[in-house]
Amino acid sequence: MADDLAPRNPDFERAVRESFAKQTFMTTLGAALERVEPGAVDVAVPFSEALCQQNGYLHAGVLASVADSACGYAALTLAAPGQDVLAVEFKINLMRPARGARFVARAKVLRAGRTLTVSRADVFGDGEELIATMLSTVIAR
Amino acid sequence: MADDLAPRNPDFERAVRESFAKQTFMTTLGAALERVEPGAVDVAVPFSEALCQQNGYLHAGVLASVADSACGYAALTLAAPGQDVLAVEFKINLMRPARGARFVARAKVLRAGRTLTVSRADVFGDGEELIATMLSTVIAR
Amino acid sequence: MADDLAPRNPDFERAVRESFAKQTFMTTLGAALERVEPGAVDVAVPFSEALCQQNGYLHAGVLASVADSACGYAALTLAAPGQDVLAVEFKINLMRPARGARFVARAKVLRAGRTLTVSRADVFGDGEELIATMLSTVIAR
Amino acid sequence: MADDLAPRNPDFERAVRESFAKQTFMTTLGAALERVEPGAVDVAVPFSEALCQQNGYLHAGVLASVADSACGYAALTLAAPGQDVLAVEFKINLMRPARGARFVARAKVLRAGRTLTVSRADVFGDGEELIATMLSTVIAR
Repeated sequence: MADDLAPRNPDFERAVRESFAKQTFMTTLGAALERVEPGAVDVAVPFSEALCQQNGYLHAGVLASVADSACGYAALTLAAPGQDVLAVEFKINLMRPARGARFVARAKVLRAGRTLTVSRADVFGDGEELIATMLSTVIAR
Repeated sequence: MADDLAPRNPDFERAVRESFAKQTFMTTLGAALERVEPGAVDVAVPFSEALCQQNGYLHAGVLASVADSACGYAALTLAAPGQDVLAVEFKINLMRPARGARFVARAKVLRAGRTLTVSRADVFGDGEELIATMLSTVIAR
Repeated sequence: MADDLAPRNPDFERAVRESFAKQTFMTTLGAALERVEPGAVDVAVPFSEALCQQNGYLHAGVLASVADSACGYAALTLAAPGQDVLAVEFKINLMRPARGARFVARAKVLRAGRTLTVSRADVFGDGEELIATMLSTVIAR
Repeated sequence: MADDLAPRNPDFERAVRESFAKQTFMTTLGAALERVEPGAVDVAVPFSEALCQQNGYLHAGVLASVADSACGYAALTLAAPGQDVLAVEFKINLMRPARGARFVARAKVLRAGRTLTVSRADVFGDGEELIATMLSTVIAR
């Protein structure tokens, strides 16, 4: 796996942070890009009353959105300079109600290929409780 | 399949519309509940510059969010009076860039069980172009 | 969608049937390739006592296997001459116990791209009862 | 997570081994149940020429089948005495060609609920190369 995770773009962190800053939806959610390392990216989102489902928990779509961004940017850390990544598909299991003050999606690349990258993101709530988990495929171009 | 799709709650449309109105995240997205029929619900979202990814297309998370709500409410149309539904998991394939002025997630129940309901949602853009498709499992309680 | 579904290989049916014949696992399952049309392939498998789970129903893995092959070959009907396809990922919902004498996975291409093709397969049991549904992504090379 | 993973059936290993022995499909595949611990089960399958896809690699359906069984039995280790588990859905990403002499699906419970259990299985080839990964939902009854 070591070879997979060597960044081809020495400036990968800047590429990731600049792209994230262009995602207006992340701003709308109040989401923040935290850790950016080769093959690993964290995106956090605080609870907000504007992001809820019918019972006052964070909407599953919010968790999926930050996990999707985290997976995409984990892939981008390993992409070649100038490449962009687009989500092909993802799947998420919602294991506990999204109660809490703050949620963090921690994404990790499982397999970086020339064309496709597979990442996993676990979404944690307060006290590192595991709320959801995602498997994602992105394509580089 | 006929039996599956007979509503057990004669007031199912009101139950769905009231619950949707409580989803503050749908309001934040500007999403609107359109068709509500037994086993079938449509949720629409207009393009907005506040909901984009890095290239100015609608963020995959937005498509997933409206498709998830549509699937959940399609299941709720067939639930017993007083029941609520929660997403267990979903999977989405993003087939085309989400370009366009307006997107509609059309959800349909494939299998309504006592505990679990499986729905499919297709997300269409302008001109009924198929943008994405979701499979979703929800649990009633 | 019309453009997507025009076969680029006039001899697509032969390409599909020859490749299927090489899948020794399909022979082991007793699976048969039935319909082969542009963007649509059916694979059938009869019930067998050698293919069961603990309750005597067909194992979910058998349904997934024939649905995966059907999705892959639906994609291959639209590939260029000489191309091969490999499964990238798939997801299956198992909606009813796989009781019955015979099962058919009917796959249909939803989106044929240059690199990736997304297909859906519905698996039917006796009397066209919907047993399972799959979403699949394959890559051409 | 600790509470989740305490077995409710002191005889869980016997329950798992007896149920696995009834899965005729596992016998057909030549699959063997290896590790059985609370919340964790490994299922191995040797390469066989009878289980291949068109290029002579193990068919994706074989990997999915052993991963599905491993996930189901990981869930069963935590079920109450007398309970059975059935797969609701699963998703698998196929990350590398399934070349090699032997494959092991290592499943781990992520969340054990009263009704639903979510498990993850990683499938490794020779030299612990990560070939595929699955997320699975099973229902107890």
